[in-house]
Order: sequence, then structure tokens, then C-alpha cells
Amino acid sequence: MAATQEDVTLLGVVGSPFVCRVQIALKLKGIECKFLEENLANKSDLLLKSNPVYKKVPVFIHNEKPIAESLVIVEYIDETWKNNPILPSDPYQRSFARFWSKFIDDKIVGASWKSVFTVDEKEREKNVEESLEALQFLENELQDKRFFGGDEFGFVDIAGVFIAFSIPIFQEVAGLQLFTSEKFPKLFKWSQELINHPVVKDVLPPREPLFAFFKSLYESLSASK
Amino acid sequence: MAATQEDVTLLGVVGSPFVCRVQIALKLKGIECKFLEENLANKSDLLLKSNPVYKKVPVFIHNEKPIAESLVIVEYIDETWKNNPILPSDPYQRSFARFWSKFIDDKIVGASWKSVFTVDEKEREKNVEESLEALQFLENELQDKRFFGGDEFGFVDIAGVFIAFSIPIFQEVAGLQLFTSEKFPKLFKWSQELINHPVVKDVLPPREPLFAFFKSLYESLSASK
Repeated sequence: MAATQEDVTLLGVVGSPFVCRVQIALKLKGIECKFLEENLANKSDLLLKSNPVYKKVPVFIHNEKPIAESLVIVEYIDETWKNNPILPSDPYQRSFARFWSKFIDDKIVGASWKSVFTVDEKEREKNVEESLEALQFLENELQDKRFFGGDEFGFVDIAGVFIAFSIPIFQEVAGLQLFTSEKFPKLFKWSQELINHPVVKDVLPPREPLFAFFKSLYESLSASK
Repeated sequence: MAATQEDVTLLGVVGSPFVCRVQIALKLKGIECKFLEENLANKSDLLLKSNPVYKKVPVFIHNEKPIAESLVIVEYIDETWKNNPILPSDPYQRSFARFWSKFIDDKIVGASWKSVFTVDEKEREKNVEESLEALQFLENELQDKRFFGGDEFGFVDIAGVFIAFSIPIFQEVAGLQLFTSEKFPKLFKWSQELINHPVVKDVLPPREPLFAFFKSLYESLSASK
């Protein structure tokens, strides 16, 4: 299958770790893709039509067929282009990958966001606790592996870009110690391996504009307390 | 692969729609399975050891390897035993199945539960609205198909046992009109097809003891208002 002959479009915004997941998967497969930058304050008709349920990015459109939800998209890409597999072939290892990537979305994404961007102090503290507890589960699970699947990065690592790239920005914005090398030495080492991997490094957006954006969001929330 | 030579165990409770998902998948594949009934007020060491993250049922143990999360288990079963496929083979259809089963878990399970078993009236009403909106998306998606995947039931239908079997019990307990044939004619017709399918029917627990259990739960919550 010649990737360049395919009609492959990604609706996204620069800086979203969920969009990055799809971009990493595409890069890994060597798929050229048209990137359509969305303005989330004024979403395109294409986005609203392609993801009527959530109206969110990323949306991946392959030969006019839209797919939403970043992990669903990554599995689709892995099943459509077979080179450089993202999920392992063994069913038990696949279930491991699905379990932990779902865990990141269910237990870490929301809680770590709310650890920083929640006005209510009690609610914020509850989310810090939940984030730390969830990160500890990942720390224990990682053990001394380089990546979650072993020597090469895969599905859980791609899901984990949120932890390796976004949480450090969030916590610096708020002066919070959530994900540090002292608290989670193995997970921190993994995060450095991940963001310095050539495929990931190539896809991650510049840190500074994102930091400035979230700093400004944090300050406006703090001012409204 | 001779199913009877495998060491296959399911930790569950009777009446859980999430446990039913796994039982339906096993039944469809013709896999004999040892069922260990858990007491959720006093969880077994095996459950705590097998699912340390969530400490919940279902847990599926295959040749001493535990897997948690009902949809992850169903995909594992489908990938391990190839007869009577649950997910379609086409990658786009697979992504459709994953999207909508995730939608049921993210948008319907919690909201419909809270539509009935939430004491705070405002919170309850918000969840009723969200449930109706989510069910409408499924109604639109189903169109005139017999099952979500077409003529034979598959992954989304298995996820949807919660809607077809549990929501009707919840709403009757509370005298609530959430999922009715008037509001959602296509989805209601689908739900009747599903619960009357021989494989599903054989797995679903008797309705009356469950109704009595949830009625009692509802009344104790109402009394605490």
C-alpha cells in the first residue's frame, strides 16, 4: 500500500498531546498526512460533521472516512498500515497495552489537569492525591523496562506522551511537584527516553508557547478565585 | 485449541452487566469457564491480587494470567479464540466498534446510574439530560440495522447489554422514563432483539432478585434525602 496515494487528513491543534499521539503513530508508520489546524473557538464544519458526538480533535480522516478518539485512531492506524507495529501481536500483551493506555486516560489525564486548573482548593487537593496514586501504579508497572512494552516504544508509551510532555508543563505553571524524578524515578527516566526518542521529538511542539498559554490560563483562573 | 484443556476462570458477581459482557463473549466462543462468585463486601485475595488497580469484577484469568476491564477482556477473548468473531475484520469497522463501545462506557453507564441513584436532585436531573442526549446519539447511529455491526451481534451490542438489560431495571425502580420505545424506537427494538438472542438470554441473570436489590438501594437512598 503506497502511503502517498492515500487521502489522509488529520484535524488537530498544535500542542494537544492527544493529537500528538496520532502524529507519532503516523510518523512511526511513515505516513504522509495533511494537517488541518482547527480553531477551537470556531470549529470547522468538517470537524463538526466528522465528530458530531464530541466535536473534539483529533479527528483522522482516511479516504473520507472519519475516526475520532485518539487511542481508537492509533489502533486503526496500526491495523491499516502493518509496518512498525505499535501494539504487540500476542493477545495478552495487547490486553496489557489496552488496559494501561485506558488507565492513563481514565485516571491520569483528568486528575492531573484538575490538579492544576481547578479553582476549588479541596477539589484540587483531591485530584493531586489521585494523580499521585495513579502515577505510582504506572511506576510500579514499568519496573526496569525502557518502555512499557519493552525495548521499543508502543501503544502505552504513545498514550503516555500526556505524562511525559504535558504534565511537566502543567506542574511548572502552578509551581506544583506532581511528577518528579524524586517521586517517580523509573517513570521519570522513561519520560526522558520517550520525549527524546527521534520519532517523538520530531512531533512534539515547541514547549515555550504552550507554557506561556497554560501560564496565562492558570493566572486567569487564580485571579478568579 | 481445545477450550476444555485451558485454565479459564472468571471472577464476577451475578447481575453485573460488565460480567455479563465477558460471559456472552465466552458463550459465543463456546469456552467453558470456572465462575468464582465474589463477595464485594469482602473481596477475595485472588481478586485483589489480580486487579490491584481497580479491585473490581470482572477479572478474567487465562492460564494464570489475569485481565481486567470488561471490554479489554472481550477483545482478548476475541483475539485468543478466533471462531465466531466478535469484532469485524475490517479496520474501519473495528474502529467504529471501539468508538461506540467506549461511548457507552464513557457517556451512558455513569450518567444513567446517576440518573437514578443520586440523592442531589439537580445532579440527578443533569444526568437524566446527559443520558437522554447520549441515547439519542446511539439511536441515530443504529438506524435500521438489527445490531450495531449489522445482522449478527458484536462488540457494541455486547457493551450495550448495560442499556438493554440494566437501564430498564434502574428506571423501573425509580419510576423514571429514560429508555422507552416512544423516545428511542430503534434502540428499544434493538434492545429486545439483544436480550432475546439465545446466547445473551442464556447468560442474563434473573431480573426479579436484581430488581428487588436495586429497589431497596433506591429506597434507602431516597430515605436519606
